[in-house]
Amino acid sequence: MDAMLRSVAAVLLFAAPLAVSAQTMTAAEAFHKIQQRYGGPIAGTTVDTLKAGDPSTPVTGIATTFLDTMDVLREAAKRGDNLVITHEPTFYNHPDDTSFFQGDPVYEEKLAFIREHHLVVYRLHDEIHATKPDPIAIGLVKALGWQNDFKNNDPFFLTIPPTTLEELATMLRTRLHIATLQVIGDPKLTVAHVAIRPGASGLQKQVLALRRDDVDVLIAGEASQWETVEYARDAAAQGRHKALILLGHEVSEEPGMEECAEELRALFPGVRVDHIVAGQPMWNAEYPPVK
Amino acid sequence: MDAMLRSVAAVLLFAAPLAVSAQTMTAAEAFHKIQQRYGGPIAGTTVDTLKAGDPSTPVTGIATTFLDTMDVLREAAKRGDNLVITHEPTFYNHPDDTSFFQGDPVYEEKLAFIREHHLVVYRLHDEIHATKPDPIAIGLVKALGWQNDFKNNDPFFLTIPPTTLEELATMLRTRLHIATLQVIGDPKLTVAHVAIRPGASGLQKQVLALRRDDVDVLIAGEASQWETVEYARDAAAQGRHKALILLGHEVSEEPGMEECAEELRALFPGVRVDHIVAGQPMWNAEYPPVK
Repeated sequence: MDAMLRSVAAVLLFAAPLAVSAQTMTAAEAFHKIQQRYGGPIAGTTVDTLKAGDPSTPVTGIATTFLDTMDVLREAAKRGDNLVITHEPTFYNHPDDTSFFQGDPVYEEKLAFIREHHLVVYRLHDEIHATKPDPIAIGLVKALGWQNDFKNNDPFFLTIPPTTLEELATMLRTRLHIATLQVIGDPKLTVAHVAIRPGASGLQKQVLALRRDDVDVLIAGEASQWETVEYARDAAAQGRHKALILLGHEVSEEPGMEECAEELRALFPGVRVDHIVAGQPMWNAEYPPVK
Repeated sequence: MDAMLRSVAAVLLFAAPLAVSAQTMTAAEAFHKIQQRYGGPIAGTTVDTLKAGDPSTPVTGIATTFLDTMDVLREAAKRGDNLVITHEPTFYNHPDDTSFFQGDPVYEEKLAFIREHHLVVYRLHDEIHATKPDPIAIGLVKALGWQNDFKNNDPFFLTIPPTTLEELATMLRTRLHIATLQVIGDPKLTVAHVAIRPGASGLQKQVLALRRDDVDVLIAGEASQWETVEYARDAAAQGRHKALILLGHEVSEEPGMEECAEELRALFPGVRVDHIVAGQPMWNAEYPPVK
């Protein structure tokens, strides 16, 4: 009897923290803990806020994703992951301003789905990028197998074995399964010094990377076609040793959010944490999707 | 003698306006006349301004282009087209703000080239788009052979013979020689009702077009991947009859600027007017450029 009681007590002691984490933690509490894990709440304006749902909802499971598309939300609901941590916006613009979308059928259906399935969506963008070294960049570098090629421990700048731009583009396309890779520069250019800028970091950050003497090629997520794209084209036309590769925004940031799921598993033991891949939104006319 | 004098006089009368247009018209005067031909100067802020060069330079020839890349400027100089009319910016951002680029080697070399070759660059963007019907949209529609398919005489909305999204994408890629076409939606979707939005018209204009009941597919130049691209993906995932095709910014607007050259030939008889194709900046890893 005494031994049996001890066993029961041990089971209770062992089970208690799990039960507390999984059953009584609200979405708001979980997101606060995630913020602390990364850079902490940003001072001033940030997009890392509640996007939809009731923050007092008890968390049954967590899904990380590049962007909570309709299909990602459906999969999260199916798996019981009611806390969705999305890197990019839910409602089609950076601050998730919904004023333009009032009455829009696509927006209204997405919002209704979140509410009907009692999902809670928070965005994790500024805080994860502000963490040093940026886990989103680290995720991309690891996906490329380049984690031993950092210059000065900085995941944004790497040295790789010299190759041609064309060969590098083919390697990236194959390794990351890219549907619509875009390249600017001379295909025969030898490249070894690489800058990485996942996502859409904008003209100035992209040009500052490309301008450096120790950078041959910038690998970015996306860029406006009248901005960095034309800067890179002119640099190449001037005979400079420069090139630009655009992976696609999702391709460049999804691995970082998959790494984030690993971090959250360590942060919330006993809580189900899934990474749900958003996938590339766009396909190539030459290779339409099979399904 | 009398007959001979009459011939000489006739030749002089015929030749005089040509000589005046070609030899004494300044770049500023020519641009003013171009503005009058289109919507006229925009009230308030506009990007349609002098970008580089001396506006009092006598015009020796005119070049229109989608965007005055280094290679376009070299070709203009070679042909003696010292007035360059560009649709998109010269210096890598919409207002051609050059403060960030002071000391940048790519910017400095481009500016020096313009000055050394006594070129004068003006932008024609807001005023041509404000002309009804938008000549840039008309140019794209004509390039597609769809000029008889306008709904209500509006070049932004057309009805074409029903086809699948996949077939339409393949037709566009082939007809417009597109290197990196991007498509969002079900390849098997039947499409017949088309909206056209050349360039990067932005989230709201693109969504307003896609939202219409009488639009199946929006054909645009470019779109941010966290904005219209994801709206279109969600619309398709909700089972709506919607798709999005991104031609590339240059592909979507170059034909309109080629049409502009035709207009300027009529406007400036006796002045050499060329359209110099900027070409697509980006290539596909599967089909790198041959040259």
